[in-house]
Amino acid sequence: MQLSEIGEFGLIHKLREKCRSSAKDLIAGIGDDAAAFKNPSGNTLITSDMMIEHTHFDLSFTTFYQLGYKFLAVNISDILAMGGNPEYFTISLGIPERINTEDIEELYSGINKIAAKFKIAIIGGDTCFSKNNFVLSGTLTGRVKNIITRSGSKKGDVIYVKGTLGDSAMGLQLLKKHGKKVHTFSPLTHRLKVIKHHLMPDPVPLKYTKGVTSMIDISDGLLIDVSHLCDESRVGAVIYENKLPLSKALREVAKRQGSDPVKLALKGGEDYRLLFTSRHKLKTSAVKIGEITEKERLIIDSKGRKRALTPEGYEHFNKGFKGPKGLGFK
Amino acid sequence: MQLSEIGEFGLIHKLREKCRSSAKDLIAGIGDDAAAFKNPSGNTLITSDMMIEHTHFDLSFTTFYQLGYKFLAVNISDILAMGGNPEYFTISLGIPERINTEDIEELYSGINKIAAKFKIAIIGGDTCFSKNNFVLSGTLTGRVKNIITRSGSKKGDVIYVKGTLGDSAMGLQLLKKHGKKVHTFSPLTHRLKVIKHHLMPDPVPLKYTKGVTSMIDISDGLLIDVSHLCDESRVGAVIYENKLPLSKALREVAKRQGSDPVKLALKGGEDYRLLFTSRHKLKTSAVKIGEITEKERLIIDSKGRKRALTPEGYEHFNKGFKGPKGLGFK
Repeated sequence: MQLSEIGEFGLIHKLREKCRSSAKDLIAGIGDDAAAFKNPSGNTLITSDMMIEHTHFDLSFTTFYQLGYKFLAVNISDILAMGGNPEYFTISLGIPERINTEDIEELYSGINKIAAKFKIAIIGGDTCFSKNNFVLSGTLTGRVKNIITRSGSKKGDVIYVKGTLGDSAMGLQLLKKHGKKVHTFSPLTHRLKVIKHHLMPDPVPLKYTKGVTSMIDISDGLLIDVSHLCDESRVGAVIYENKLPLSKALREVAKRQGSDPVKLALKGGEDYRLLFTSRHKLKTSAVKIGEITEKERLIIDSKGRKRALTPEGYEHFNKGFKGPKGLGFK
Repeated sequence: MQLSEIGEFGLIHKLREKCRSSAKDLIAGIGDDAAAFKNPSGNTLITSDMMIEHTHFDLSFTTFYQLGYKFLAVNISDILAMGGNPEYFTISLGIPERINTEDIEELYSGINKIAAKFKIAIIGGDTCFSKNNFVLSGTLTGRVKNIITRSGSKKGDVIYVKGTLGDSAMGLQLLKKHGKKVHTFSPLTHRLKVIKHHLMPDPVPLKYTKGVTSMIDISDGLLIDVSHLCDESRVGAVIYENKLPLSKALREVAKRQGSDPVKLALKGGEDYRLLFTSRHKLKTSAVKIGEITEKERLIIDSKGRKRALTPEGYEHFNKGFKGPKGLGFK
């Protein structure tokens, strides 16, 4: 069977069945942002992300510094989505001939920059030759006292998003249109703001997690990721389009480019923002975008019209396997 | 600077300097088989290995089942080399269009086979599209009470190897010569024994590590890996060629192929055997192949002639960057 017939999430489902584990210390396995296992001193989280040239990034759009920064950022986002603190990072690189020592050092400068922000230690990995594409694979561990999974939400919970949505997808559109690298973000115009969000996302942890029932990071797009959370919690959701947090930069740039900022916020992907649910109203800077329902999954637009909420956004293998296409590289 | 000018180990040295960490819980970082960090209940080990098509393997020589088995085996070998027990495995795959669902399921069957032997749980990972080559990246964690690093050996220590050397390299030579897959290893002839060692290496742990001063797994070849151990311990070594453990299968096949089994044992690589040192003579089935010296690094051949021990074997990037060449794919 072609992978394009079952798609990325169909494949993950199959593999999850195949690897059903009885390990007694395992708290969360395949199907969450990170895996978690117990030890007497707390819980260890572990997440892995792979980035492949021409699938996840294009070296004509990104500097090695920016690529290194993003590479660790996307892993951090997965640890934060479980309510954890990141700790140790291992890096495996498959390097083609055209990439030189200075490029790799620049990549590590970007990694070190965001590692320092989160006090993450880089502890090892693997370097090898790659015939065609540059490949990065990272594994980040974390520590957490109270794990927040995707599966804890219940009917009536409020759905929150921390930070704005759609900036990254808008930034990628600009990069593709102009087809060149951005070497400085100063002065930080609206255009550069959204581009920066794409090239160097800055994950922000949720400081107070008391009362939070479930959480996920938005990497494949709001609609896909809210669907994942609903699947794991066995619930539905209503999302209000007019409540989606859109940045001023996104609104301005989208207007000038003739793009729909709401569509970018719903399906764009690579936001690396946290979406979480709570039984009670929380004191938080996060924005309420909807509620958990028993079963039905709906989007309500600004005019009050309802439509079905389906998991549209970025999925690997499901695009006739032609590689990066549509809005996102991811 | 071209990576071929500094080589894989030159690059690792540079990156190690760049990532010098002050993390207080870190016991071993870049430059050992696995990284190690303390927690109150013991020590956690973590190792990552990447395997890229045409660099590490060729799908015309290996089945997906064998590839999956080897993929986890090489990671297990790194955990065993620190004296640890493997626990959790995360898998990231970059999958090109020509590979289908059944292939990936077969890969997972091979992974599950060896995972069951070592009671390892597969807990997550990442799957994505890869434009050209099939890429596998795995991270394995382990637990260990007394960590054995590469840096503890002292002058006068005895050097041991557990298991035979050179089989894997001989097996690869046969595979390259005949250029086709092996689907069954029964009956297990000499030829199939060495081929099996290449395709499905079986790492064996050292049961009693009392008195062991340092350890490394032989993956790049005996001469390179003994040099690594000497570098980390700041010592030298003498290796006796006539003491190298050679299997009957290797001797027989090498004779028929006109290959030198000693050369394969010294430089072949991908043995995934443990090399360790001890201050005292140990009761062990491992074979004594030499001693640690203060500084000098020598090989003594069967006629008692001495020559310099230099780190010859497989190194990424250092072959004019033309990809797999010489004896090993690794």
